[in-house]
Amino acid sequence: MIEGTSTAALLLIGNELLSGRTQDANMAFLAARLAEIGIPLIEARVVPDVTGIIAEAVNALRPRVTYLFTTGGIGPTHDDITAASIAQAFGVPHVLDERAAAILREHYPPGELNAARLRMATLPQGAELIENPVSKAPGFRIGNVYVMAGIPKVMQAMFESLKPGLKGGAPILSESVTVYLPESKVAAGLAALQERYPGLELGSYPFQMQNRSGTRLVVRGTDPKALSDCRAAIVAMVEGLGVEGLGSESARSDRR
Amino acid sequence: MIEGTSTAALLLIGNELLSGRTQDANMAFLAARLAEIGIPLIEARVVPDVTGIIAEAVNALRPRVTYLFTTGGIGPTHDDITAASIAQAFGVPHVLDERAAAILREHYPPGELNAARLRMATLPQGAELIENPVSKAPGFRIGNVYVMAGIPKVMQAMFESLKPGLKGGAPILSESVTVYLPESKVAAGLAALQERYPGLELGSYPFQMQNRSGTRLVVRGTDPKALSDCRAAIVAMVEGLGVEGLGSESARSDRR
Repeated sequence: MIEGTSTAALLLIGNELLSGRTQDANMAFLAARLAEIGIPLIEARVVPDVTGIIAEAVNALRPRVTYLFTTGGIGPTHDDITAASIAQAFGVPHVLDERAAAILREHYPPGELNAARLRMATLPQGAELIENPVSKAPGFRIGNVYVMAGIPKVMQAMFESLKPGLKGGAPILSESVTVYLPESKVAAGLAALQERYPGLELGSYPFQMQNRSGTRLVVRGTDPKALSDCRAAIVAMVEGLGVEGLGSESARSDRR
Repeated sequence: MIEGTSTAALLLIGNELLSGRTQDANMAFLAARLAEIGIPLIEARVVPDVTGIIAEAVNALRPRVTYLFTTGGIGPTHDDITAASIAQAFGVPHVLDERAAAILREHYPPGELNAARLRMATLPQGAELIENPVSKAPGFRIGNVYVMAGIPKVMQAMFESLKPGLKGGAPILSESVTVYLPESKVAAGLAALQERYPGLELGSYPFQMQNRSGTRLVVRGTDPKALSDCRAAIVAMVEGLGVEGLGSESARSDRR
C-alpha cells in the first residue's frame, strides 16, 4: 500500500448500489483523481439509505483518514437522508442553510422551490457549501467529511470545486508492463522485486486475450526514479524468462 | 431496507480497486444474484492487499451477517494474501490443502505445478473447497465466509458452485416506473407511499435524456401483491400530477 501524508476513505451511500440496480462509477473516478494529487484512497464502504448505518460508518471512517468523501443521498426525495445522517454523526442540528436556500431560490423559477427542493438546502449546522456548477444544489463539508452527489456528472463537478482545498502529496504514479505469460511464471521474480522496492506497490493482474494467457504487471509509487528503475527491472525479469519477442507483441509498457 | 431472514455482506479485496485501475463489476452481479434467492446485501467494503486490514474487516463483518462473501486475492502472486489473511482472522494455520493440491496436480501438465501455483492450494485449516469450473484453482469457505476469485468470470462460476448451499428467503422483486418529471415533483407523493408500504423499499433515481429531466421510481420487496399494489399506486400518483400521456412516451413501467 502506498503511504501518503494525506489519506482518503470513501463512503458510497445508496440502496441502488446494494441491490445491484446501479453499477457504481464514482469510486474509480475518485481513486484516480485523488492519486493524481497524492492522496491514496485506503478504504471504501457501501451502505444503504438508513440513517443509523450511515452515521455509524461516517464515525468509523472519519478518524482514520485525512479526508472522508461520501457520494449519494443528497437529492429531494424521502430516501435522501445523507445530510440528516451526517448531522447525527456529528451531533449537530439539521437545519435550513440560508446560503444554500439562496442558491436554489436564484436557480428555480418563482414558485418552483417546493418543500422537496428545500430539503436539498437542509444541512448539518456549521457545514460549508461545496459548489455544484451542474445542477446548483450544493454539496457540503463538515469537519473532514466531504458530501457529494451520487450522479457521476454532478459528483465530478463537485469534486473539482472542492479539490483546491485538499492538501495532497507527491502524485502517485503508475507504470505497467504487459506480458503474455501466466501469472505463476512471473510470481517469483515479482515477489523478489517487491522486496527490493518496498516503497513501491507491485501488482499482477491476469487476463485472457485471443486464447492467450497474459499478465499485466503494475507498479505504483510516488518516486519517479524508483518507479522507472523498477519498471526496467520488471522488463529485465520478464526477458530473463525467455519470452520470445518482448516487443510490442508479447509485451508492452505504457504509462498511465 | 429489505429485511431478510438471511443477509449478506461483501468484502472486495484489492489495491487495483482503490487505485482506480480496475472498475469493480462483482458487487452488482452478486447483489442481483443474491436478491434472486432472497438474501439482501446489506453492506460492502473495499480494502487493500494488507493482511491486517483484511483480517480486521472479515472479523468486523462476519458476525453481522448470515453470509460474508469476499472477492480477489487468491491467485499465485505475492499480493494474493486473502487466504493467509482469513486464516489470521479465524486464528487457524494457513496450510497446504491436499484436496486443492490434487485438483491443481490433475489440471496442470507435469512439471507445471510450481511453488506459485501451489500457493493457490494453501488455505486456512478446516476450509471447505468451492469448485472453480473455469480455471480449477478453488475458492473456499470457512465458517460463514465464502472466498472467491476477483476475475468476474471465475467469481461468477464459483458463486454458481456454492449457491446451492445458501439458505435464502423469498426472492426480492423489483418494479419500476419511469416518468419525465424531476424528482422534486414526485417527492411528496413518493414519501406518502413509502409510509403506506413500510415493508417495501421505494427509491427515486433522476436521469437526463434528450434534454428532458426524468425520474425512475423503483419499488422493491418480497411480497408480490404489495409490490403490484404499490406500483399501481405510483402510476396513479404520477397520473394525478397531470403528466400528459402517461403511456410509453412520458412514463413506462417495466419488470426487472
